[in-house]
Amino acid sequence: MARITDIKAQLFNVPLDEVLVDAKHGDHTHFQLITATVTLEDGTQGTGYTYTGGKGGTAVLAMIRDDLAPFLQGQDATDVEALYDAMGWHVHYVARGGIASFAISAVDIALWDLRGKANGLPLWKMAGGRSNRAKAYCGGIDLGFDLPKLLESVQGYLDRGFNGVKIKIGQPTLAEDLDRIAAVRDLIGPDIAFMVDANYSMSVDQAIAACKAFAPFDLLWFEEPTIPDDYAGYGRIAASTNIPIAMGENLHTIHEFEYAVAQAGLGFLQPDASNCGGITGWLQVAALGAANHIPVCSHGMQELHVSLVGGQPTNGWIEVHSFPIDRYTKAPLRLDGTLAVAPETPGIGVTFDWPQLMPYLDQTAAAG
Amino acid sequence: MARITDIKAQLFNVPLDEVLVDAKHGDHTHFQLITATVTLEDGTQGTGYTYTGGKGGTAVLAMIRDDLAPFLQGQDATDVEALYDAMGWHVHYVARGGIASFAISAVDIALWDLRGKANGLPLWKMAGGRSNRAKAYCGGIDLGFDLPKLLESVQGYLDRGFNGVKIKIGQPTLAEDLDRIAAVRDLIGPDIAFMVDANYSMSVDQAIAACKAFAPFDLLWFEEPTIPDDYAGYGRIAASTNIPIAMGENLHTIHEFEYAVAQAGLGFLQPDASNCGGITGWLQVAALGAANHIPVCSHGMQELHVSLVGGQPTNGWIEVHSFPIDRYTKAPLRLDGTLAVAPETPGIGVTFDWPQLMPYLDQTAAAG
Ligand SMILES: [Mg+2]
Ligand SMILES: [Mg+2]
Repeated sequence: MARITDIKAQLFNVPLDEVLVDAKHGDHTHFQLITATVTLEDGTQGTGYTYTGGKGGTAVLAMIRDDLAPFLQGQDATDVEALYDAMGWHVHYVARGGIASFAISAVDIALWDLRGKANGLPLWKMAGGRSNRAKAYCGGIDLGFDLPKLLESVQGYLDRGFNGVKIKIGQPTLAEDLDRIAAVRDLIGPDIAFMVDANYSMSVDQAIAACKAFAPFDLLWFEEPTIPDDYAGYGRIAASTNIPIAMGENLHTIHEFEYAVAQAGLGFLQPDASNCGGITGWLQVAALGAANHIPVCSHGMQELHVSLVGGQPTNGWIEVHSFPIDRYTKAPLRLDGTLAVAPETPGIGVTFDWPQLMPYLDQTAAAG
Repeated sequence: MARITDIKAQLFNVPLDEVLVDAKHGDHTHFQLITATVTLEDGTQGTGYTYTGGKGGTAVLAMIRDDLAPFLQGQDATDVEALYDAMGWHVHYVARGGIASFAISAVDIALWDLRGKANGLPLWKMAGGRSNRAKAYCGGIDLGFDLPKLLESVQGYLDRGFNGVKIKIGQPTLAEDLDRIAAVRDLIGPDIAFMVDANYSMSVDQAIAACKAFAPFDLLWFEEPTIPDDYAGYGRIAASTNIPIAMGENLHTIHEFEYAVAQAGLGFLQPDASNCGGITGWLQVAALGAANHIPVCSHGMQELHVSLVGGQPTNGWIEVHSFPIDRYTKAPLRLDGTLAVAPETPGIGVTFDWPQLMPYLDQTAAAG
């Protein structure tokens, strides 16, 4: 029995170096990091986390503090999957996606951190154990960059050793997107993996037209062409093109992923453990992807996903996101050749540098 | 231009007279009422609200206070539908259901309150104008009542003049549910409308077996037999029986309702304006129901839904829920014969009795 005696949630509003823009989320001036630290009777602690693009952080904090923490208090932390299910039912009426998925994710990741520490296992071994290496590409929130700055940014990815790059699309006209895509492909040459991400800014018909126009550029995938709710629309887009279609960062429940796998004709799945139910939720999606021969990739928080994607048999790609979470951890992502290396530390392998984060602690929310 | 100068959110934890139980939400000891009061430049105020069964309230409050209020500050309140869309995109990454649907609902209802006051129109006229009367039934959270108490409770509904009653099902065995259903039908006679609600506690196969067993009891509908995510499962249940199947209280986006209408074979739709996007969201669902000839009913907050259901052409039923919100308003629901009467007051017609509510104000959350 590993009795839970305390759950502490904290919110940090971490500024970005510059304002970042994509097609549908507006300006990003900072990201919100919400941590959940679970303490057991014997004093062992595990920390999990989630993040947002700047909205919803205080709601996530409130749900962990006021709904999940009182529920978990006194329970046995060992059976993580049972606690995951129980948390979902506990808040079901206000959940099934949205803020609850973020809140449950943070707590679930903390429970996996405890599990790994208890068993002396690093996350990549607990998450399938295929490899402690994962393919990795850099994705920028770069829709607002002019072309010289975009190319400079992409060149920066190559200089760091990455062999995959992703840019945002969704300029006012398709011609403008095409100019940028052509210029990037020209810069990176034929051997670098290249993806584009529309952040669901297109109609199905616009996306089908875009796929036709993108055909010459050997894209590895076209991410979120249209709204995540329209599985059949994704299916129509996928049926119109040879470019693989990718989605997942906006799907939060296993049911949503099941619909996507059945109807959306996806070439890649991109679950994010920070919003699809933590490691338990991510592994459920990964099993679904593997059963359907769809490579399982990730969105955001590369410092954690490197272990999950690496461990999984489908050998997907991790996105190295431009929110610099790992500037505030003790083991920033490391490349070995072009592959990202998973930590060997027992637990999730992500340890926060609390003194670095403290200037950004949301004091109001903490007092709430 | 009706410029928004302030949005004030408050959370009230209102105790219930007794602990209430259904199949999947556990014990209800109180409900959470979250109000949103929007003030315009000229001093006019509109108040909207949402509620929960006891979880998620502080998260809803946090999202209104920290994400929606700053966004709406300074905007024109007149084009409610445009603000509704804009709020959805603003919090999209942490939304599409869950807490955000509750938060947006409360604010949207406040904007409709302002719209009605500005135009001198009561809600039932703004919501279609068919009638200021709506069919009404009482629904209890009565799974934990023993049979004598259940029958006493149902008799109480009849004594108050209602001609429709709904009970919870989901006892340990189908035989126990059947005993209770038979006893209630025996008590109410053949002319009273009778519904049952499983709160998604059954598998599809269990629900199909239950439908067979329920056939002799002339049920008006069978509500939420299985999880709301399984539209095709609902469709299989509906195809197996002549008993109309109903759902809606756990659907939050228009996309979820579209899937339900297309696949679930529903006889009745039950959107709840407190969690499907307020009055704007509810009216979108109502249009979908009307276009598909499905009567549009409601879940909870009868004091508001009487105007929405009354106004709509499909002539649905309102649920008179056992959370006593209208004990804290100035115009509790009134029956004329068996029909519930919508208020004629300009605006939403729900005015809170703030001194009555103040003892239950969540001070911690208010200070947050
Ligand atoms: Mg993306
Ligand atoms: Mg119900």
